[in-house]
Amino acid sequence: MTLTLIIGNKNYSSWSLRPWLALKGAGIGFDEVVIPIYIEGSREQILQHSPSGKVPALRHGEITVWDSLAIIEYAAEAFPDAAIWPAGREARAWARSICAEMHSGFVPLRKQMTMNVRRRIPGFPVAEDVAENVARIETIWSETRRRFGEGGPFLLGSFSAADAFYAPVVTRFVTYDVQVSAESRAYMDAILGHPDMRDWCRSAAEESWTLPQFEV
Amino acid sequence: MTLTLIIGNKNYSSWSLRPWLALKGAGIGFDEVVIPIYIEGSREQILQHSPSGKVPALRHGEITVWDSLAIIEYAAEAFPDAAIWPAGREARAWARSICAEMHSGFVPLRKQMTMNVRRRIPGFPVAEDVAENVARIETIWSETRRRFGEGGPFLLGSFSAADAFYAPVVTRFVTYDVQVSAESRAYMDAILGHPDMRDWCRSAAEESWTLPQFEV
Ligand SMILES: N[C@@H](CCC(=O)N[C@@H](CS)C(=O)NCC(=O)O)C(=O)O
Ligand SMILES: N[C@@H](CCC(=O)N[C@@H](CS)C(=O)NCC(=O)O)C(=O)O
Repeated sequence: MTLTLIIGNKNYSSWSLRPWLALKGAGIGFDEVVIPIYIEGSREQILQHSPSGKVPALRHGEITVWDSLAIIEYAAEAFPDAAIWPAGREARAWARSICAEMHSGFVPLRKQMTMNVRRRIPGFPVAEDVAENVARIETIWSETRRRFGEGGPFLLGSFSAADAFYAPVVTRFVTYDVQVSAESRAYMDAILGHPDMRDWCRSAAEESWTLPQFEV
Repeated sequence: MTLTLIIGNKNYSSWSLRPWLALKGAGIGFDEVVIPIYIEGSREQILQHSPSGKVPALRHGEITVWDSLAIIEYAAEAFPDAAIWPAGREARAWARSICAEMHSGFVPLRKQMTMNVRRRIPGFPVAEDVAENVARIETIWSETRRRFGEGGPFLLGSFSAADAFYAPVVTRFVTYDVQVSAESRAYMDAILGHPDMRDWCRSAAEESWTLPQFEV
């Protein structure tokens, strides 16, 4: 059955990066459709694939799933051997908790530091509410690594959906020059060095679309 | 193994209502701990149960899960016979999509119409961005019922986590007197008539805490 992931521009679409990286990192092959977002006609184009009018969406044969988190749960069920979630029950509960927390939270960070993979803004000022978000993220990273990170450099040791969920934050920290602990920096380097993540960043750099509203 | 759900005030805590109703509706028994939120000392109290400092959280033996959506996924896995998600693969993919869309979206509705189960404000003005949220929710309800609603009055026929996820919206529509289609109203009546939902609303009415910031 054909598997197709519909995503937005790789430079800007943080929600798209998550399932893309989760599937790639788990070794699940798929076709990719990129729709440039927030330009004339893009909404109509997205609506042909996604009932919410937003990317990402996944098509698997006759089935359509939209929203990054639902796509990941769908894929975890459809490809049980791919280890999208960690294997242990406790690790999986923890991984799901930190992903769901990310999914619905961190609004100040998301709004004030929109994803812009290829951009670098040294000394970008960090507002107080964003700083609180950063602190919570650093706590999540270190607490997750301390508890479950033994087997490798990723949040739960081996690469999992949890890393895919925090990957957009990693690129934001790079873009906006956010100061973090050495421990956090080591984790960020693991993500940035992941071959699929490098691939995504390279594609983002090659894209020709520029969206002024996300260029501060 | 003891199962304990830690929740906020029933009148105000919309995120708590979701897993509470999903578990109850699926016939899963649990102990309940209510922590009054946004008052002195509540953060410290919540942190004893939930690493994010937010309710809801679930404790199952040694395992802690927090965030409403992660709790539901955890319970769906731990109690596979409870039918927290619908049985068909396509229905389940759809249910997860609409829950994840709710989890991360509808910010204007959430901010301008905070949950307040026992309150009634006739003629509350609906801002444009809230109206867009309402329209999308009505589309989700009717589209879901049209596709999967045959076997009963709930979104996917029988009661499922999808209904639990939209239950806070149902009470908001009642509180703020939001005008909806007859079809939407019929669905709202199914939710409001659900015995566990009635139970929640009754408890909310009996709570003595009042939070001025949520009383417009
Ligand atoms: N909660 C959704 C959010 C999706 C979302 O907001 N996508 C943005 C791009 S990152 C989008 O499609 N915007 C285009 C539009 O609204 O026209 C998810 O996790 O997939
Ligand atoms: N995404 C979380 C949101 C949880 C949340 O925001 N909970 C609020 C109450 S509804 C809370 O705990 N507030 C208390 C506080 O922040 O001190 C979930 O789905 O569980």
